[in-house]
This record gives sequence, structure tokens and C-alpha cells, in this order.
Amino acid sequence: MTARPPEQSFTDDPTLEADVFARNCASRPVLQDVASRWGVLALAALREGPYRFSALRRRVDGISERMLSQTLQTLERDGMVNREVQQSIPPVVEYTLTDLGAQVADQLFGLIDILESNIAKIEAAQAAYHRQ
Amino acid sequence: MTARPPEQSFTDDPTLEADVFARNCASRPVLQDVASRWGVLALAALREGPYRFSALRRRVDGISERMLSQTLQTLERDGMVNREVQQSIPPVVEYTLTDLGAQVADQLFGLIDILESNIAKIEAAQAAYHRQ
Repeated sequence: MTARPPEQSFTDDPTLEADVFARNCASRPVLQDVASRWGVLALAALREGPYRFSALRRRVDGISERMLSQTLQTLERDGMVNREVQQSIPPVVEYTLTDLGAQVADQLFGLIDILESNIAKIEAAQAAYHRQ
Repeated sequence: MTARPPEQSFTDDPTLEADVFARNCASRPVLQDVASRWGVLALAALREGPYRFSALRRRVDGISERMLSQTLQTLERDGMVNREVQQSIPPVVEYTLTDLGAQVADQLFGLIDILESNIAKIEAAQAAYHRQ
């Protein structure tokens, strides 16, 4: 992953308030990371418990090895995911949510739950829209 | 917007359950629509109340006219947003959340709130990651 320097630093000045509606706010790229196509699904899957890479890839149906690797690196960099290497032979790498990642994953799961429960209503709206 | 036929229809068979982890589930593209870069911000803004197009564009700092127009069309098609034309002279167009859109926006607002409140922690994690 390439480095992405924050436009405003909140650690330097704790009186600055983050505002996602402001175009340069550092919270915006993080929102894009966790709400990305694969970021949402990886976080929601890790809410179920620790995963090894290959098992997580099977759970997030359709994700490529490369995309899962990139997604996990981004989530680790943002402090959402821990990558733990267990000193076994062969070494095992496990991914878990941090406390912050768990809070974020709970919100995303709530969002997924609303969409899954209302999919018939959403499809009806889509059909009506295309009939216009 | 081009039509995007759902791969599985949940209205035809109500016993089918939506599962966002399945690659062909119709809930996945909808999740991408509401969690998109601009979808999130438009929904979160409309949670504050009805908006006209130009006011909404000012609220969602940085969005282009074209992207806001596309985003609102997508959200209208998915049943998240109502587009209401008031019969005044000149006619005024207002955007509001549907009941479903309001539920979705509440979840997204919760997500934004977590990120904004933890931005110092996130920036510290990013700095530590880049020091590795």
C-alpha cells in the first residue's frame, strides 16, 4: 500500500474536530476504506471470530487473493484489524478485529442486516423505477 | 443509469434468504450503492432533513454536479430517497429519505460518528503502521 498522509492531523491538535462532510477531513479516506466493497465484507466476516487468510477468502465469496491481501493491509493500517503470527510450525497467521474494528464492524453488520431484511422492498423499488 | 438486473430475485421467491456473503446476492450491489464514497455522505446529509439539489451539493463538500445527480438517481432507484417536485413557479425539487433510507442513514451516521470520534486513534495506528 502506498502511504496516504492525512490532510489534517488530529493527533497534533486535539481541539480540531473531525467532520466527514469537509472535503479534506482525514476521516473521509478511512470511511472509504471500511465502507469499500471488500472492506465491509471483511470486517463483517471478522465479526464472527478470528480467521486465517484462506478461510476468510472462502467466507468473502468472490474476493481475489490480491484484493483480500490489500484490504487486510488497509484495515490493519487504519487500526481496525490485528494480524497475529502464531509461532507454530508452520507459522499460522490469524486476523482479528481490534476494539475499534469491532465497533465499526457492528455498525456495518447493522447496515447489512437492514439491506438483507429489506431486499424484496428494494427490488420492488428498482422494478418501479425502471417502469417509469 | 443503466439497468442492473438482480441475479437472484427475492420478490419471486420469498423463501430465498438474502446473504451478502454470497457473490451473486442482490444485496451486494445495493450495499455498494449506499456505502459508496458519495452514497454514504448523501444519505448522512439527508438525515438532517429535506434538501434541494444545490444545497445538498454544498453540504457534501467536494461532490461534482454529475456525481451528485448519479448518486441521487441510484439511491432513488434503490428505494432510499424520494425525489419530490413541488408545483411552484419555478418548480422546486426536494430530496428526502424514505423510511428504509432513514434506517440505512442511521446506521451510516453511527459509522461516521465512530470514525470521527476515533480519528486520533486511527491516525496513531496509521503512523505506527508506516514506522514498521
